Amino acid sequence: MNIPDFPQLSNADRKFIRSLHTRKGRDEAGCFLAEGRKLCQELLESTFRTAAIILDNAADRNEQLIASEFERCGVPVFALGGREFEAICDAKTPQGIVGVAEYPKSKSEAVSETLIILDGVADPGNMGTIIRAADWFGFRSILLGKNCADRFSPKVVRAAMGSIFRCNIIDTPDIATAITQDFPRFSFFCATLDGSVALEQCRPKKQFGVIFGNESHGISPEILAVASQTFFIPGDGAESLNVSVAAGIALYHFSRCR
Amino acid sequence: MNIPDFPQLSNADRKFIRSLHTRKGRDEAGCFLAEGRKLCQELLESTFRTAAIILDNAADRNEQLIASEFERCGVPVFALGGREFEAICDAKTPQGIVGVAEYPKSKSEAVSETLIILDGVADPGNMGTIIRAADWFGFRSILLGKNCADRFSPKVVRAAMGSIFRCNIIDTPDIATAITQDFPRFSFFCATLDGSVALEQCRPKKQFGVIFGNESHGISPEILAVASQTFFIPGDGAESLNVSVAAGIALYHFSRCR
Repeated sequence: MNIPDFPQLSNADRKFIRSLHTRKGRDEAGCFLAEGRKLCQELLESTFRTAAIILDNAADRNEQLIASEFERCGVPVFALGGREFEAICDAKTPQGIVGVAEYPKSKSEAVSETLIILDGVADPGNMGTIIRAADWFGFRSILLGKNCADRFSPKVVRAAMGSIFRCNIIDTPDIATAITQDFPRFSFFCATLDGSVALEQCRPKKQFGVIFGNESHGISPEILAVASQTFFIPGDGAESLNVSVAAGIALYHFSRCR
Repeated sequence: MNIPDFPQLSNADRKFIRSLHTRKGRDEAGCFLAEGRKLCQELLESTFRTAAIILDNAADRNEQLIASEFERCGVPVFALGGREFEAICDAKTPQGIVGVAEYPKSKSEAVSETLIILDGVADPGNMGTIIRAADWFGFRSILLGKNCADRFSPKVVRAAMGSIFRCNIIDTPDIATAITQDFPRFSFFCATLDGSVALEQCRPKKQFGVIFGNESHGISPEILAVASQTFFIPGDGAESLNVSVAAGIALYHFSRCR
């Protein structure tokens, strides 16, 4: 196999792929980008459908092998020259392969015993890092409230390092209503700077969720009002912890309570 | 007070400040930038010396108040117009105030009972986030090996959220030698993916250090060879945790062992 065997990506398709750099373009197409070897390999092994693979003319042997695996599965593979390839990528220093993945079907019924809720986590790096940590600790049902970063933005997908393909991530317009109506039997624990108990005192006895808030404003009052408990992570120095670090610490604790 | 009272920043000084965007420029000048209200406020309250403050002509009331506090302490304050102000900032959407801080005196003798060591943590966001978490948990002696991000790069300073002013951060050309020669009485615990014990089994009984490695390659073999113990953070999903999340979890654990 060599790269010139693949058809060149058309101008119209290049424009389409660049449209996936914006949330509007992604939502209209129902597709997002998985950039680089690792994410394409994870996409290949996932249950997500792949609309197309684009290979840089200078792709290395590993990238070519991944592309040929996709081709074997019936996914169309296209080639594209250096600068034009870079233009379809969001990464500053792209690797030689990009996948166009389809949005998964919503699986809101498939919520497990535990739930992570993000209320306005706005930084894509933070959101992706939290999804990666949630996957690590086996919390794979994640509810996103309004004002969160878009889970399918290239930065979130990169920071999540493939965990995006393993987690059941659900957009929820109104978290407070979801808590009271959809999960009446769950206890909910909110990470706050002035929580009523220290993290290690949280000992859920049944189905539970953990809620993390916005980088500047924390968790909305209407969500705090319906949650069971607030907790803090004991510390004595910096003003606060980065939300993805706080989430990692809390999920470490709660993973040992299951 | 109003902003035109301050002298305009000269062209030569603008060039000098832009030189602080690079490590070479910072090391030559022995200065780095603290951008934005929060960092300038932290700089004001810190033991660091401030060479100058630059205020955007459109600075808001809070920023003007911080600048006048600096002026009262004898720090020269300069004004600069919109676009030219943006050009001296590293942040994409700068606030209206920037401080030029001097490098602190090295204080390698002042190492406390506990030590954090970073071996090649290369991403500035990760390094800043780890420094912030270390400060939160009261681990304020931090050794940086070769190939770490520059602690005074604008991205590290921003991600550390002022913790850079409270931690004693020491560059070390050879971590393995430092461990054996400078800290012979310390136990050292290394975060690895295949550590010999789970994090919660680490129970240091005396002075100790915790070591975190590079985002891709982990901790160097020569450091692993001289450290007391490796540990892992139990998980079952994602391939790995982000190093700043792993550091946050480990520091949470070790902060409860002191």
